[in-house]
Amino acid sequence: MASLRFNDVYLKDWFTIAGPLESNSRLKKLDIAMDDYYYGEKTFELAEVKMQKNVIQKLLDRNKLVQSDINLLVGGDLLDQIAATNYASLNYPISLLGLYSACATFPEILIVGSMFLKDANIKRVVGVTSSHNLSAERQFRYPIEYGTPKPHTSTFTTTAAISTLLSKEVGKIKIESATIGKVSEMGIKDANNLGAAMAPAAARTLYEHLRDLKRDVDYYDLILTGDLGCIGANIFKHFCELNYNLKVRKYVDAGCELYLKSQDVYAGGSGPACLPLVLFNKIIATGKYKKILIIGTGALHSKTFVNQKNPIPTIAHAVSLEVI
Amino acid sequence: MASLRFNDVYLKDWFTIAGPLESNSRLKKLDIAMDDYYYGEKTFELAEVKMQKNVIQKLLDRNKLVQSDINLLVGGDLLDQIAATNYASLNYPISLLGLYSACATFPEILIVGSMFLKDANIKRVVGVTSSHNLSAERQFRYPIEYGTPKPHTSTFTTTAAISTLLSKEVGKIKIESATIGKVSEMGIKDANNLGAAMAPAAARTLYEHLRDLKRDVDYYDLILTGDLGCIGANIFKHFCELNYNLKVRKYVDAGCELYLKSQDVYAGGSGPACLPLVLFNKIIATGKYKKILIIGTGALHSKTFVNQKNPIPTIAHAVSLEVI
Repeated sequence: MASLRFNDVYLKDWFTIAGPLESNSRLKKLDIAMDDYYYGEKTFELAEVKMQKNVIQKLLDRNKLVQSDINLLVGGDLLDQIAATNYASLNYPISLLGLYSACATFPEILIVGSMFLKDANIKRVVGVTSSHNLSAERQFRYPIEYGTPKPHTSTFTTTAAISTLLSKEVGKIKIESATIGKVSEMGIKDANNLGAAMAPAAARTLYEHLRDLKRDVDYYDLILTGDLGCIGANIFKHFCELNYNLKVRKYVDAGCELYLKSQDVYAGGSGPACLPLVLFNKIIATGKYKKILIIGTGALHSKTFVNQKNPIPTIAHAVSLEVI
Repeated sequence: MASLRFNDVYLKDWFTIAGPLESNSRLKKLDIAMDDYYYGEKTFELAEVKMQKNVIQKLLDRNKLVQSDINLLVGGDLLDQIAATNYASLNYPISLLGLYSACATFPEILIVGSMFLKDANIKRVVGVTSSHNLSAERQFRYPIEYGTPKPHTSTFTTTAAISTLLSKEVGKIKIESATIGKVSEMGIKDANNLGAAMAPAAARTLYEHLRDLKRDVDYYDLILTGDLGCIGANIFKHFCELNYNLKVRKYVDAGCELYLKSQDVYAGGSGPACLPLVLFNKIIATGKYKKILIIGTGALHSKTFVNQKNPIPTIAHAVSLEVI
């Protein structure tokens, strides 16, 4: 397992745009709330591109930065060929590293961004990720049978885009260490039960992170997975105890924390945007937690491989954050 | 533009598997030649997974390494959700960073792998990439009209997988410096003319690389783009001269160098595997070149965005290699 420690890497600021459902959910604070899923564009996909484009620009504006102040863009999303990131980057003549790790993309961005800040020439990195419920539905679940209810284990792709400003200058949150996950599967082939598929990957990454960093599970004020959903979160806790003898007490899952019960989104939220949205707009916003371990979980299948009856490969990346 | 210099990062070894057409092309030397497109599997996609899996294992075996000697896997491919890499990684309990940069994925792997070798805990990185003509055809061009010829500007996705062993120990090739590309487009919306779409991105990255590193174009014994194809390669040369006053003389394109004229593959080869396949099995194999600049070019569109009539975003990453 590759666990890394970082020196003097900070999350200076972030900017979030959230969809209509997310804006009326359990979030404490939002930078921009979208009125509808089109966001003034002709297609859901172009709406997602505009969301990414805008979170980057607003982040630069708020920090009085211009494009040339940023040395590197690191981004990824859920669309085939990470197209939302690629099209949004057209607006920014900044070197781009495109990543894909499904819903574990946000911690992967923090890890890669932090590592590139070790280079003397890289002073500021902007990370960007997004998901859009209806571009994801079109891609992964179209054609959708008319009137068919989803199983209660399925999750709801979050509509949001999040940008982050990583820098060597002291900022709001220190990126302290990280553990890069390994790919595994436990035989689950049901793309409507991704929480169960990903829970073992999250448990293993937590175990290896604590082992590598020589830490007890209570070292952290909060462990935040994203996104196992409410069902996957319970499996995760049981799996930690049974397999690794880890009692995970101070723990929530971003997918389970985002929506109201009345919003009826099955087992909770998912998508690469869900974890950072809940992290910034709910967890950090409370001001209660200092040491937070985020564990992003990704289901790494594709439609073609699932249609060919293959199991779902999963991964989980962990990043230790210290609120300054 | 982010240009980086690396110290003591080496390509110690590599391993290549190539498809039936590629094995009978202009390559000098191959590790494994496939007899057919299935490679003993039931689907083209599973064949591609097996190709990646095997190039990793054969590379470890030849270097007398076991899985635990490798600290990090860095990989990507052309399939939606980089599924070939994700499924191949199931066989290797090694931390994985998944990347996507279309046919520029190979240099992105070298750049990210080299940067992570700056960490004291990361001693060896394995990079892996692949493409498979028929899994790519199924994904990007299905349904294919019966009996319809392709335009002469279209390229042919190469079937191959390549693994690379990156290490701090002195090896066959030094990874000397790199320039991470920016996303741009010039209005081209034709997914059958990607060479023309990508040529300006390659020219810009070359220009900015030479500017940042304070080098003349003749500093390099060879500039190898991959993959503009024969038509895109000519546009690249003209674009360099007209826009940047750069006379690119010692230059070939991997897509244009791979196949025989009799193999009738339109404008040449493409796919993330094409550049490293030609680099290792043709260019390096001659023993003629010491300083080589590879410029990987990627077309970053998706089917959905092309169907919605959007232009094709492109990128190019450059890596300077020194044969020891």
